[in-house]
Amino acid sequence: MAYQKIDQLIEEKRDSSIEELSRLCAQPSVAAQHLGIEECAVLVADSLRARGFEAQILLTGGSPVVFGERKGRTDKTLLVYDHYDVQPPEPLDLWESPPFEPTLRDGRLYARGVADNKGNFAGRLLAIDALLDAEGELPCNVKFVVEGEEEIGSVNLEPFVRSHQELLAGDVCVWEVGGVDHMDQPIQMLGMRGICYVELRARTANQDVHSGTGGSIFPNAAWRLVWALASLKDKDENILLPGFYEDVIPPTEREKELLAQGPEMIAFYKEKYEIDHFLKGINHELELAIEGVYEPTCTICGLTSGYQGEGSKTVLPAEARAKVDFRLVPNQTPEKVLAQLRAHLDAHGFDDIEIVDLGGNPPAKTDPDHPAVKIAVDAAKDVYDKPARVIPMVGGSGPNFMFKTYLDVPIISSGAGDSESGAHAPNESISLDLYVKSAKHFARILKLMESYKGL
Amino acid sequence: MAYQKIDQLIEEKRDSSIEELSRLCAQPSVAAQHLGIEECAVLVADSLRARGFEAQILLTGGSPVVFGERKGRTDKTLLVYDHYDVQPPEPLDLWESPPFEPTLRDGRLYARGVADNKGNFAGRLLAIDALLDAEGELPCNVKFVVEGEEEIGSVNLEPFVRSHQELLAGDVCVWEVGGVDHMDQPIQMLGMRGICYVELRARTANQDVHSGTGGSIFPNAAWRLVWALASLKDKDENILLPGFYEDVIPPTEREKELLAQGPEMIAFYKEKYEIDHFLKGINHELELAIEGVYEPTCTICGLTSGYQGEGSKTVLPAEARAKVDFRLVPNQTPEKVLAQLRAHLDAHGFDDIEIVDLGGNPPAKTDPDHPAVKIAVDAAKDVYDKPARVIPMVGGSGPNFMFKTYLDVPIISSGAGDSESGAHAPNESISLDLYVKSAKHFARILKLMESYKGL
Repeated sequence: MAYQKIDQLIEEKRDSSIEELSRLCAQPSVAAQHLGIEECAVLVADSLRARGFEAQILLTGGSPVVFGERKGRTDKTLLVYDHYDVQPPEPLDLWESPPFEPTLRDGRLYARGVADNKGNFAGRLLAIDALLDAEGELPCNVKFVVEGEEEIGSVNLEPFVRSHQELLAGDVCVWEVGGVDHMDQPIQMLGMRGICYVELRARTANQDVHSGTGGSIFPNAAWRLVWALASLKDKDENILLPGFYEDVIPPTEREKELLAQGPEMIAFYKEKYEIDHFLKGINHELELAIEGVYEPTCTICGLTSGYQGEGSKTVLPAEARAKVDFRLVPNQTPEKVLAQLRAHLDAHGFDDIEIVDLGGNPPAKTDPDHPAVKIAVDAAKDVYDKPARVIPMVGGSGPNFMFKTYLDVPIISSGAGDSESGAHAPNESISLDLYVKSAKHFARILKLMESYKGL
Repeated sequence: MAYQKIDQLIEEKRDSSIEELSRLCAQPSVAAQHLGIEECAVLVADSLRARGFEAQILLTGGSPVVFGERKGRTDKTLLVYDHYDVQPPEPLDLWESPPFEPTLRDGRLYARGVADNKGNFAGRLLAIDALLDAEGELPCNVKFVVEGEEEIGSVNLEPFVRSHQELLAGDVCVWEVGGVDHMDQPIQMLGMRGICYVELRARTANQDVHSGTGGSIFPNAAWRLVWALASLKDKDENILLPGFYEDVIPPTEREKELLAQGPEMIAFYKEKYEIDHFLKGINHELELAIEGVYEPTCTICGLTSGYQGEGSKTVLPAEARAKVDFRLVPNQTPEKVLAQLRAHLDAHGFDDIEIVDLGGNPPAKTDPDHPAVKIAVDAAKDVYDKPARVIPMVGGSGPNFMFKTYLDVPIISSGAGDSESGAHAPNESISLDLYVKSAKHFARILKLMESYKGL
């Protein structure tokens, strides 16, 4: 069998690869908190150099981008997009082991960022090590672009990609996320929703006031914020910004056909998250699949104001803040949503509510019938027990639009995630078994690039 | 002059009294956080015993009540209600000196609880020390009831007062708060609004979820809470609980007449809190005074949900909580408001919102023409530069209703507070000058009790 030697090397190198991954995860790199970013960028660059990549740490104005390139046997180029930054680890008390002390339990490695997406990056290095050991060279050129602000909306990546189109040019791009669904079926995710992430801030006085004195007569920042938020979306999930839905285009028939091949999720979600219903009364699998991806959202991600400790404190808050994300579907854009949000708030008497733009990007997707998708699907064939399932778009967001827009490259996915990974949640983890499989999958993608013809 | 010797003794003892007050304030006693309560009760009991009071620490099921009694020259009894618990000190970063390290700056003592109400308690001890030094005995019986849960709604005091009516019986009661307004005019506060303090809790799943996956399909606790809150009060400050206003009675003509004697507050509030308008467009002094006291409120005191750190985190919160206080005016009751709140939430589809009752009490007031009020006003005459102003009711709340209901005692006030005191806010403080004046005022009240006739 063609991949026998490579697979064997991947298995042999697994433990040292997990050690390398653990070192990466032990380095906090929380972009939202400016924590450990530079240190992690250096680790990533060093790990690429250790495989003979020419690696550079390139400044962006925010977290630096690590770029690494190694020539291969052919003139085909695989571009890999990963990120070394991670979500904030809070709430800390829900972690069973500390988020930055990678811990093995029952065949899984637990750490903040291990699934999203340091484990995928390390798995690709494992595949490269095996290929170099087996063949002395790589089947194609490989370029890594590893950024440090994915979890805060890739706020500085767009000008970087725009101004480095030649450096980043490639035939196919492997995206940061990938893995299997909750039925252990490998998945190919070809598109992502866009996002517009804002903080809404209300400020009504220069200090908190005793609620006895001020309750009847002083403006209350928490009330201002609550009323402003309530004006954005009604209880039936209708987003009330004027014009918000006007650019929304529904999924194609082909996309719906692919979505219909997905596993049943209703019972799974209900059990996993202990929820008893879905929004809008949805109780039908395909409807849920479409709603979860092709409808835009307005999600309150956080609220903070006044007294939040135990018991009671009779205070009238001078300040209140909400984190809000809008997930965008084709052809919405964050610029337009930001403008709609400002106009809506002003029109409803909330010109006192400040909007802080925390980053965003438009949605983007790859044609499910592109030949690059065939490579990714074929590469999964003898690695996983089940054939790969193509998912035309997912609910999450990322900077894939930049690669579509400036590099015109098809985007496929490969990674070690599964339904237990808990990206963004406490106790984020990956399965070691899937870690090995992701390395094998990536190695095959590299091999298949040798004979890639494109469109 | 009759009080010359007593006043001189008060001034001589001022510094050692401030030291005693500082020891009291250095002892954290945050009822909401169960912090230092027992330790502070012991300090209070010891300080009473040091003045020859028989003091007991009486259990209530929550924070203990300190009761102290010393017989006097006459059979008249002055009851003093104080509390040794304090508000939580948060937000800590806004304190110029640590909240539990009492610090003197520019003639003021800064510490959590120094104004509300440890400074008033210590000032009364200073007056008692001077009287005992001057006369060897007290002019009347004095009873102290010093509770430890005032800042959390006196949740265990009502059964205590009800079951200790004989122990607590008195002719006049001095209330915990008192002092001067921002024009340095001494004030007599004769009534307090009631309060109903609740925490509203929404819980929609067993864990937070990535907002990309769940935003379109999973219920969001923060949204549930925001919608529920927005249903409670509209932007024009109308509280929407059915029946909420039906028990509200307007102020009497006598009360309005007294309110009209108050100082101008509009310019003062605007400058102090840097606010540019009042609720409901009010811009008239008497209107503001009436609104601030005789209208019930619904105040959001705190909001907490999901991610509250720097930058962005794309999470769909499983849990959200709000602290809400309703200030009640005659003849509202917290029991009825709680029932109205539950009925309202249920009727609006918010039966998933949990209401946690964090304590409450009804409003209560003393007749401004009661002879006890004359004592308090007369006692202020040669202490302050201005005559005392009678305030029929204030915006704040307290357990005064229990004393009205079970002890049938008129309630007057005496204390060291001023407009800079910042009760409940960071940098709480008292003026040392007013501290001495409050002791002199209290000493005069004791002396005037000798000839008190009652109604």
